[in-house]
This record gives sequence, C-alpha cells and structure tokens, in this order.
Amino acid sequence: MATFTFRRQLTVEWGHCDPAGIVFNSRFFEMFDVSTWMLFETALGVTAHELAETFDIIGIPLVDARANFLKPAKFGDVVEITSRVTEFRRSSFDVEHRLTVGGELAVDGGETRVWATRDRTNPEKIHAVAIPSDVIARFG
Amino acid sequence: MATFTFRRQLTVEWGHCDPAGIVFNSRFFEMFDVSTWMLFETALGVTAHELAETFDIIGIPLVDARANFLKPAKFGDVVEITSRVTEFRRSSFDVEHRLTVGGELAVDGGETRVWATRDRTNPEKIHAVAIPSDVIARFG
Amino acid sequence: MATFTFRRQLTVEWGHCDPAGIVFNSRFFEMFDVSTWMLFETALGVTAHELAETFDIIGIPLVDARANFLKPAKFGDVVEITSRVTEFRRSSFDVEHRLTVGGELAVDGGETRVWATRDRTNPEKIHAVAIPSDVIARFG
Amino acid sequence: MATFTFRRQLTVEWGHCDPAGIVFNSRFFEMFDVSTWMLFETALGVTAHELAETFDIIGIPLVDARANFLKPAKFGDVVEITSRVTEFRRSSFDVEHRLTVGGELAVDGGETRVWATRDRTNPEKIHAVAIPSDVIARFG
Repeated sequence: MATFTFRRQLTVEWGHCDPAGIVFNSRFFEMFDVSTWMLFETALGVTAHELAETFDIIGIPLVDARANFLKPAKFGDVVEITSRVTEFRRSSFDVEHRLTVGGELAVDGGETRVWATRDRTNPEKIHAVAIPSDVIARFG
Repeated sequence: MATFTFRRQLTVEWGHCDPAGIVFNSRFFEMFDVSTWMLFETALGVTAHELAETFDIIGIPLVDARANFLKPAKFGDVVEITSRVTEFRRSSFDVEHRLTVGGELAVDGGETRVWATRDRTNPEKIHAVAIPSDVIARFG
Repeated sequence: MATFTFRRQLTVEWGHCDPAGIVFNSRFFEMFDVSTWMLFETALGVTAHELAETFDIIGIPLVDARANFLKPAKFGDVVEITSRVTEFRRSSFDVEHRLTVGGELAVDGGETRVWATRDRTNPEKIHAVAIPSDVIARFG
Repeated sequence: MATFTFRRQLTVEWGHCDPAGIVFNSRFFEMFDVSTWMLFETALGVTAHELAETFDIIGIPLVDARANFLKPAKFGDVVEITSRVTEFRRSSFDVEHRLTVGGELAVDGGETRVWATRDRTNPEKIHAVAIPSDVIARFG
C-alpha cells in the first residue's frame, strides 16, 4: 500500500446541496476526481496539465467509482478529504478517498483508474499500459 | 428480484462532457438518481414530490453508489438507461442501472438506498424503517 | 427577428435544486445551452455533433449569457423552454430563452453567441466569421 | 459604490471543462454564487449558515445573473475572482465579479440580489425588505 497521502479541506457550497440541505451525491464524485488529480500532481511534481505529456499517456481514466455515504455533509460544513493509492497493479490502481466532517467519516469513496495511452495504429482506441516503476516509487 | 423495470433515453449534452469529449463520471450519478426517482414514480403511481407524503417517509436516501465504466459515452450519443430494483431487504434495497450506447453496455451502475423516516422524538435524526409489503408488491 | 422557435419540456430534478428546494441558478444556464443546440439542430437539420463539420466552423461559442429570475421552479415542476434567435448580425446572434412553469414566465434568459472558425495561420486562435445567409434563412 | 472587495483564487478542474477544453459557462455562475456568499461572510463576520438567522432574513436570493465571456479559462488555469457590491438600493443590490486568468480579464460577471424575508401572514411568500444601514456600512 502506497503511503503517500494528499489531504485537503473545502467548505460545502450552497450549490453542492439538494433540497434536503445536504451535499448531492454526484458532487462527492466531482470532489474525489479533483483530489485524485491533486494527489498525482503532488506525488509526481507535475501539474495535472503536464501529466499526460510528461509520461506519454492520455491520462488516468476512471474505470470504477464507488462511495458509501455514512453521514451527511451540510451547507457550510468544512470537510476534509484524505486520498491515497491503496494498490498499484501492472496498469491499473485503486485510490481511496476518506471524507470527514468534524473528524467523523462521512463518505468512504474509492476509484479504480488505468494508466492509458492512445493506440499507435488506431488513435481512436486507448489501452492500459504498464505503470512505470518510478511513478509507483513516488507514492512511497 | 423485482421484475418491474424503467427505461428511458437521453441525449448526451455538451455540458455533460469533459475535455476528453466524453461524459464526466459525476454526470452518470446524476442520471442514475433521476432514473431511480422515475422508477419509483412509475411503479408506485405517485410523483416524486408526493412520494414522501404518501408513504410517511422523508425519502429514499442513498447509502451507497457505484459505477463501472466500460465504454465512453460521447457528446450527442443517445444513451438508454434501464433501471430496476434487484433486491428488497427489510428497510433497504438495491437498484441496478444499465446504461447502453448503441445497444452496448457502457456503464453498469448500482445504488443502495433506505426507506427512511424522521425520528419521532428527535426530528434531527432519520432512520430506516420496514418497507411496506404493498410497496414491494408494486415492483412485481 | 427569426420566427423559428424550439420548444421543449423537462421535469425539474432533485439534483437541480438547492436547499431552498428550488432550481439552482447555474442549472438554468445548462438548460439554455442544451436548448440552443436543439434549436440549431432542428432549424439546420444536422445533429449538434455534425454542426461544426457541416459548416466548417468550430462551433457557436457563447460570449454573453444572462437570466432574469422571476419565479422559482421547484423539484418535480414541469417547465417549458421556448427558444428562438431574436437577432442575427454579421457574425453574432442573440438567442432568447423563455422558461415557464404552469404557463407563467419564471426565467427570462438570453445568450449572445458567435459563428466561429479556427484561424488558418494560428490554430490556437478562433475568430468570428460571417454567418452564411442560407443558415439565417433556415430560421425564417 | 462599496469599497469592500473579496478576492479568491481557484484552479480550473477537469470536471469544470467541456469538450473544447474550457470552462463550461454554467460553472462560472456556480463560482460567482460562492464568491457572493464569501463576500458577505467576510464583510459581515458571520458564516453563510448564520446569515439568515442573524439578520432575520431567508437569504439573499438572486433575481438576475449575467456574464460576458472575454477569454476562455482552461483546465489547470489558476483564476482569480474579485467581487464587490457596486450598488446598494433600498432592498436590492448589485454584485460585480471580475474573473482574471494570468492578470487578464476573462469573465465579467454580475448579479442582482434582494434582501428577503418570509411574509408573516403567508409563509409561502417571500418579499424584499429594506437592507439595514449597518449592513451597508460594513461594505465601506
């Protein structure tokens, strides 16, 4: 398990919330996507914008996303999201996102992504390729 | 397994898509949320707006959401979402959402929700209660 | 003023609404964007996807958007949006979007867009070009 | 014109952008809404959550929103939003939002909002009331 973690705080916005006054589920997936980008930027020392060019990939597309909603987050709440890669496989990896409110776990999220390039013979196609060992090494 | 299914088509909007030209992941969770509301409206014969009042619940809050992204959906694609309850338990249930593009499965989504009321002694709290058998019966 | 109008109905979703139980303002701008695409698709007889290729443009980028919120639209409300081009100028045009709830005007929106191509010498730049007279003719 | 301004920076997210790789218009209206809340929180020294209770209002509902898009903001761009009240009238006020990228004005936005309370005799209705002079005084 990678030990490098990325932690950020944000304040729940009015526009994040639904008529029940709590964050609408899709907004957590937006937050997790941002946290993954920031986790990779920080670990690899490149901006999200440079990631593709630096590593000759098209990106790290999402193949699976999931979240378990344990407690609601309300308008004005300060939430903290702690993200890390829990497993690197040959060409895919899992990211865990733990979102807390007042120190208590509110959403337990997860993503599976692949390290992907464009097919040389058919640029319409993308496929997963081996994650460089020095990339993995940066995550501790 | 409940046999009642709800099917709808929609066209992928420009604003649904990210710089890769494909639907951004959080948008699928928005689509699935709408499909669950429509599944219940159709099966129970009430509007989403009347659901809470008719059954003396506060709603059917989401406790778990997940999606497996198999193929991308692009701007202008007509997608079809087929939704059904795959299991009713005492006070919770699972909804399956299968989103296809051109007949091929593109996103395999799932939700777990609860049948919830407000606590009589502490209205700040909500808790899951038994799903009425006649509600379950409507789903075949 | 162009006489061709495009009208569509949609039902306000749970995820469109804020803690006040009404549609959050940014959602109306999403709706208007879709309506403009549909207005052009219908008037010109091409899909939004084909629009750029058919007319050798990069699209119809938005340069100005505005909305006046007269009445709220609530979760479950059926709203009707009526859209039309109110003025074509040399390379830009105005679109009017009138959103009603129960027959009453709720949001009075407007957009100004340009007919744009990529600069031949510098593909990083885009600029507005004259709207073909047969395009304008299709709007009556 | 009020002299109190609120300035914040944010980084454009992948999910903010459309297939053209630039921020989709509705996202700017989300950003401006947040900036208005933060402007009021900072000027009045209350959290957005406490605003309604402290001043016995239901909030500061939006009656008009507009934006002029001068330059695109792209994925990864650091944008700065500077917001201030440009005019207080009896019960309504205008907020100006200037969003810059690399020091250049990219979006020139504006909102008109009202200081609103619930009608005492008909709680379904809300209406604008006079903005207290000490509220206006806080904005310099």
